[in-house]
Amino acid sequence: MNSITTPSYSVHFNETAYVALNNHLAKSNYSKIFILVDENTHNCCLPIFMSKIEGEYDFEIIEIEEGEINKNIATCTQVWEVLSELDADRKSAMINLGGGVVTDLGGFVASCFKRGIEFINVPTTLLSMVDASVGGKTGVDLGPLKNQVGVINQPQLVLVDTDFLNTLDQRQLNSGFAEMLKHGLISDAAYWETLKGLAGFDNLDEYILRSVAIKNEVVQQDPTEQHLRKILNYGHTLGHAVESYFLESKEHELLLHGEAIAVGMILEGYLSRKLTGLGKSALEDIKATFLGRYKKVEFERKDIDTILTLLKFDKKNSHGNINFVLLKKIGEPAIDIKVTPDLLEEAFAYYAE
Amino acid sequence: MNSITTPSYSVHFNETAYVALNNHLAKSNYSKIFILVDENTHNCCLPIFMSKIEGEYDFEIIEIEEGEINKNIATCTQVWEVLSELDADRKSAMINLGGGVVTDLGGFVASCFKRGIEFINVPTTLLSMVDASVGGKTGVDLGPLKNQVGVINQPQLVLVDTDFLNTLDQRQLNSGFAEMLKHGLISDAAYWETLKGLAGFDNLDEYILRSVAIKNEVVQQDPTEQHLRKILNYGHTLGHAVESYFLESKEHELLLHGEAIAVGMILEGYLSRKLTGLGKSALEDIKATFLGRYKKVEFERKDIDTILTLLKFDKKNSHGNINFVLLKKIGEPAIDIKVTPDLLEEAFAYYAE
Repeated sequence: MNSITTPSYSVHFNETAYVALNNHLAKSNYSKIFILVDENTHNCCLPIFMSKIEGEYDFEIIEIEEGEINKNIATCTQVWEVLSELDADRKSAMINLGGGVVTDLGGFVASCFKRGIEFINVPTTLLSMVDASVGGKTGVDLGPLKNQVGVINQPQLVLVDTDFLNTLDQRQLNSGFAEMLKHGLISDAAYWETLKGLAGFDNLDEYILRSVAIKNEVVQQDPTEQHLRKILNYGHTLGHAVESYFLESKEHELLLHGEAIAVGMILEGYLSRKLTGLGKSALEDIKATFLGRYKKVEFERKDIDTILTLLKFDKKNSHGNINFVLLKKIGEPAIDIKVTPDLLEEAFAYYAE
Repeated sequence: MNSITTPSYSVHFNETAYVALNNHLAKSNYSKIFILVDENTHNCCLPIFMSKIEGEYDFEIIEIEEGEINKNIATCTQVWEVLSELDADRKSAMINLGGGVVTDLGGFVASCFKRGIEFINVPTTLLSMVDASVGGKTGVDLGPLKNQVGVINQPQLVLVDTDFLNTLDQRQLNSGFAEMLKHGLISDAAYWETLKGLAGFDNLDEYILRSVAIKNEVVQQDPTEQHLRKILNYGHTLGHAVESYFLESKEHELLLHGEAIAVGMILEGYLSRKLTGLGKSALEDIKATFLGRYKKVEFERKDIDTILTLLKFDKKNSHGNINFVLLKKIGEPAIDIKVTPDLLEEAFAYYAE
């Protein structure tokens, strides 16, 4: 597999990833290297990762509790305290080995420790490989508000070792696959068709590369999300609200990120049909594809009310308006579309049909 | 008074400051403007500040508890929660009206809220006017470790209204004056002589402008503190450790920042005499000047031991080395000077003589 170059760093794949890593470590002269893991990646990924390191470095392992519920300021503070206790200094570096929680939180922790130390991301889930590996977004949640606190800051390197996908169950793989389907919807109808036709997750390498390349093209053209980059939020405006609600709610089973944005992509498909000219058969294709792959979520009246309240906290909203990314057709997005509350209600009704 | 232009924003003084502010607010179309204050600036400065605002804006006041002891992550989290509750969005802005605690913490809070909203700093103490108004350092303390968590990020504007100095007592003014004396020591022997000769703090405007200009020149040449900017840390390596120790210690009276770095500048003056050729009379001048203006601090054996332990946590240290900025002569600094532990002991003995 190839490498993908962003303006400030490179994403390296599989065999070339470890060559790049070893070269980088050899020339960087870090005073210490901290590897951030959660319990899962500590057990399943760290031994593999360490076996690929050539040369002697001063490593320290920091383990955080797994799960989105721990992606918060309290966990950051714990890591900052451990870094201090272990004498991390400005020439130290962090390697974030894990899914989106570890890379988002670890990137934020590194970006703020002593006003910024260098970090390397090694995404271990399909979701973090295709979504978190480019773009420089770091951050943590504030209560139910996803990624409410964070910064934009770029890692030194991103390493994608698709062998780590063998440590994931089907549900986790499916969650990441939702972001790949989104890449098709917002930029490439042929890619959407190809992905739809895939029966399993055994040979994803070329599609992971394709998805990272799509995201990188978008981010390069608009790093600070003034215009084009917004298209990556397709399905996320409602999807994030759904995800936050299920995260906080005691009554519901947890929804994975991809499962929540799968709901969001159907809901926002309906809005696209009403507001930006998405065709009827395209909408039906979107709904059938996601309901075929992701379990249908049952929403009660009070669920919908709370989700619509959470919507207003979405980072992309300003001046009290809720702006959506919608689709003109599959592969062609439209940004900054305002949606009235009654259409949101209709969208949930369409989802439930 | 003039304005001083940095690469990304301007520092405006007195009458021109409010003209610049009103122009900026009129063109910025912020969805809401949050003014961060502490109890003191809420009472003493906010009414003056608000009286200068022309036009109607949606202001919200957020008050934090005063004092360095509250410059921490817990206070940041409270402010992030209040911002969320009050519907702050990406087009909102923060105005930080206060001393270094408010501007350092407020700048960090704004830089991380939804991955960054715009902010304006209005320093109200002499210290924050001459020290915090340029350079873009934001951050908070982590226990006894000063500014351990933060980012470098620039405000939109900095407004220096020297009328706010009338709200300060002599001790606070004297604390800020220590940073101005430092500006003389590191860059301009004539400025040091002038400041030494000042009897009171009644007519500081031209010197505040001079100090901001000195700091701005240094920061412009080295924004990320790779080399030249380090000279601003003269007196701070030991001064910070002294300040941290007194902040945490139950047995000692609190030392203000300037009082702590006054100690640091004498101690590091001694190191300069030993290591970088500072003359005997220059060292005596430094010691007499600071002891003439700042009460001598009594250090016991255990105080010194703890302070030397804190030293290793200073952000400027790496690979276990403690690097100092020292003086070759008054007005001429030397950076990256390594100091052995026995010399540090001698410096404390010299201070106590």
